[in-house]
Amino acid sequence: MCICSSASCTSSTTTGPSQPTQQLDSGGTTQTEKRHSQRERVIMEEAKGNSWIILHNAVVVTMDPQSRVFRNGGIVIEHDSIKAIGQSSDILRDFSALAHQIIDLNSQILLPGLINTHVHTSQQLGRGIADDVDLMTWLHGRIWPYESNMTEEDSYVSTLLCAIELVHSGVTCFAEAGGQHVSGMARAVELLGLRACLAQSTMDAGEGLPASWVTRTTDECIQLQKELYNKHHNTADGRIRVWFGIRQIMNSTDRLLLETRDAARQLKTGIHMHVAEIPYENQLVMDTRKANHGTVTHLEKIEFLQNNLLAAHTVWVNNTEIGFLSRAGVKVSHCPAAAMRMLGFAPIREMLDAGICVSLGTDGAPSNNRMSIVDEMYLASLINKGREVFANGNTDPTALPAEKVLRMVTINGAKSVLWDDEVGSLEVRKKADMVVINPSFWTMVPIHDWISSLVYCMRTENVVSVMCNGQWIMKDKKILNINEEDVILMAQQASSELLKRAGIIIPKRMNIL
Amino acid sequence: MCICSSASCTSSTTTGPSQPTQQLDSGGTTQTEKRHSQRERVIMEEAKGNSWIILHNAVVVTMDPQSRVFRNGGIVIEHDSIKAIGQSSDILRDFSALAHQIIDLNSQILLPGLINTHVHTSQQLGRGIADDVDLMTWLHGRIWPYESNMTEEDSYVSTLLCAIELVHSGVTCFAEAGGQHVSGMARAVELLGLRACLAQSTMDAGEGLPASWVTRTTDECIQLQKELYNKHHNTADGRIRVWFGIRQIMNSTDRLLLETRDAARQLKTGIHMHVAEIPYENQLVMDTRKANHGTVTHLEKIEFLQNNLLAAHTVWVNNTEIGFLSRAGVKVSHCPAAAMRMLGFAPIREMLDAGICVSLGTDGAPSNNRMSIVDEMYLASLINKGREVFANGNTDPTALPAEKVLRMVTINGAKSVLWDDEVGSLEVRKKADMVVINPSFWTMVPIHDWISSLVYCMRTENVVSVMCNGQWIMKDKKILNINEEDVILMAQQASSELLKRAGIIIPKRMNIL
Repeated sequence: MCICSSASCTSSTTTGPSQPTQQLDSGGTTQTEKRHSQRERVIMEEAKGNSWIILHNAVVVTMDPQSRVFRNGGIVIEHDSIKAIGQSSDILRDFSALAHQIIDLNSQILLPGLINTHVHTSQQLGRGIADDVDLMTWLHGRIWPYESNMTEEDSYVSTLLCAIELVHSGVTCFAEAGGQHVSGMARAVELLGLRACLAQSTMDAGEGLPASWVTRTTDECIQLQKELYNKHHNTADGRIRVWFGIRQIMNSTDRLLLETRDAARQLKTGIHMHVAEIPYENQLVMDTRKANHGTVTHLEKIEFLQNNLLAAHTVWVNNTEIGFLSRAGVKVSHCPAAAMRMLGFAPIREMLDAGICVSLGTDGAPSNNRMSIVDEMYLASLINKGREVFANGNTDPTALPAEKVLRMVTINGAKSVLWDDEVGSLEVRKKADMVVINPSFWTMVPIHDWISSLVYCMRTENVVSVMCNGQWIMKDKKILNINEEDVILMAQQASSELLKRAGIIIPKRMNIL
Repeated sequence: MCICSSASCTSSTTTGPSQPTQQLDSGGTTQTEKRHSQRERVIMEEAKGNSWIILHNAVVVTMDPQSRVFRNGGIVIEHDSIKAIGQSSDILRDFSALAHQIIDLNSQILLPGLINTHVHTSQQLGRGIADDVDLMTWLHGRIWPYESNMTEEDSYVSTLLCAIELVHSGVTCFAEAGGQHVSGMARAVELLGLRACLAQSTMDAGEGLPASWVTRTTDECIQLQKELYNKHHNTADGRIRVWFGIRQIMNSTDRLLLETRDAARQLKTGIHMHVAEIPYENQLVMDTRKANHGTVTHLEKIEFLQNNLLAAHTVWVNNTEIGFLSRAGVKVSHCPAAAMRMLGFAPIREMLDAGICVSLGTDGAPSNNRMSIVDEMYLASLINKGREVFANGNTDPTALPAEKVLRMVTINGAKSVLWDDEVGSLEVRKKADMVVINPSFWTMVPIHDWISSLVYCMRTENVVSVMCNGQWIMKDKKILNINEEDVILMAQQASSELLKRAGIIIPKRMNIL
């Protein structure tokens, strides 16, 4: 059946497979025909001046509260939103006469746009600059010199390159982890047609910072972010939101934390912060701030934890701290690749059991190299099944099943970026953010279970087309609003020049002739 | 400089960058010119009746003992082998006049063909049949019913589908883990043009086996494999070798183990066996065979360990057992995805430190879902950096660096399949097994370090062309000897029918309408 956004639509909204019942009345007219003509009149009235697009003949994985999957489903898009969703036959019957465009998806899969809740768009030009080095070299020898030498143009190019990878991975919405030059990011996001929560990397304390960063006061940090909010929040047809960023507790005074909390609350926006990444961080908090465990314990003590906080990584937390996060409604972005490579194994099962909303992120290119949320789904499943071996002596292949992982990158992602009223599932009145997946490919065949195939087999090769806010931003694997080759050339050059400015030299590994 | 296979070639074979020195003799002729004309005469003589292919203008990562990488390298292929390798300019100067074909690789990367040392080709039709289930359901409820109901035609189709994925991942050579119907596998391998060590899944003991399997005696197991050896070993222009298979110790009598050892020794071939996969296996060996630790300890005691044994997984081994494996020259196939998902974290660092030759495998599709050795490289690095957290309290981002991982899928792979005299590196007189990688793509740009980019960023998207035994088997992402779409349709149908025969029903995860 169709679930139409029209309040006057008479279509039934039960969730069973739709087979319109054919009951003859005394005049020989079926009741279905009567309902149709009434519904058609309503639809014709509504359609005046509208341009509807119908996508049909797809496996529609809605990720809605009923976990509905339409084997042969269809969807109607009106401007930037979903007008109707249901069985293909119902959608075609009710809407095709007045649709502007009808697209047969040939049994491909339609998913909500995927949401990557922790991305460093500024770091894309730094992919490969910090592979196989220890954490101090990573931070002081590579990342800080790199980021502190970025120009706004670098940020723009870096975000373009990153966003190309995000779109090819089926992402329609992402949360910037807090990087450099939000205006550069915003320009790229607007051009590409993505949806994003952008944030400035913010620090007012800490040792070893580059010269250009140490001079920022707490007030300047807050002021700069308010200006960015005023300039960019709710721009690009509402696709861009500006959040507050906190780099990490080791680079923040308590005053910065609390003023950020209050400013975000006042502006009704979110805070993105790296939390409890490494044991050293917890130890430093215990030593310097007299917390009896670590970052989360301290944040609880100063009443910083609230439900607009997106805590990235959150690896080194104990059960008490999981309780604090859960009670405050804090969201957690789990980044499996970065966790394995650099940070450690976060207690994801325990957090989910405690009711915490956990989503997935790729982190930045120098922490992961692949900015593919599709790969992170696969990794999230593997890492969390494997981690059980250390608790129980055996891995648990049933831990974190596919449907939970798929929720992490859709509806949980939307909740994490405080946008689940508009995105994260395919539902009537939500924004038309969606991805077309071609499963008839050597990467996924044979398919016995759509959901596990999407999580365990799908690769970026399968992502065919992407729509954000009702607009196609990639079609048949081609990104529409930019020339990918041009961006690749710009990125290679900008990256070389940036590394030169920053004095970063990558040692050679082999005998290069 | 060029390193030519001609014994009479006068070209120098030093490893520095080639800049022919220009020293005038008394008659005004350069010594270089003299050497050239002499060399040219030799080459012209050799070229008679030969068809040489030159690939040039590539980043050639040789993986040879000197770890040479030619920034702008070239290679000459004569029939199935590498005739020369060196700087592009030298190769073109010396060989272009008589080459049959000259291909400009436009700065793409040329790698030795990748080697996947643990693949269940028979299980490709079973992709997705055992996701998120416990180990006993996995084995008794899904895999055994599936494999025991396979026909030879199923094995053929399954191997075709699997091999498509292997080739797209840059694999030119693989070791079958021991599956069903070697004749079906051999047919597919021959058709596709790959190189493989095939093995029959062999068991003569164990509980819970399907009815059709319990009746095989030890003698029948050995006899069947000898017949397969006689029929298929060294066929397909020498690309197919037949190995002995041992499924696992829980399904083998000691007599089967020892007769397999002796037969393999006599026929000068290898043995592929799953070793120490789960704690339960070690416990059962301790309980029933009175070994004081587990499988490896028992195999040492009965003198089964030898240097033609390829031990897959080898997760649950202690330091003493690592010593046994090292001393005997046993090779280990590390399968990171399957390890994380089902088995546990193998002590790879410790094995490498002990001098064991460790290579990489994907395992089978119901244990991993992705048969991509490219993804396994990425995973191997992540899992082994992450695993250190359990030993030391912190991950170690420097553990298992990229160059070691790249060796695992090239030269170590070749050693593991006992074929390193002919494959595993780009060297003169070795077989022409190689992969062309396009790095100028959103997945890998920017590149600061070719080696780490290949390991951490490369995806199957970057694998453009594959040559095995001097023949292109994939060009511009199109597999040449079969129609991929046909295989996909055949596979989907064969898989559905096989599951029906085996009575396997996959439960639905969501609300399918």
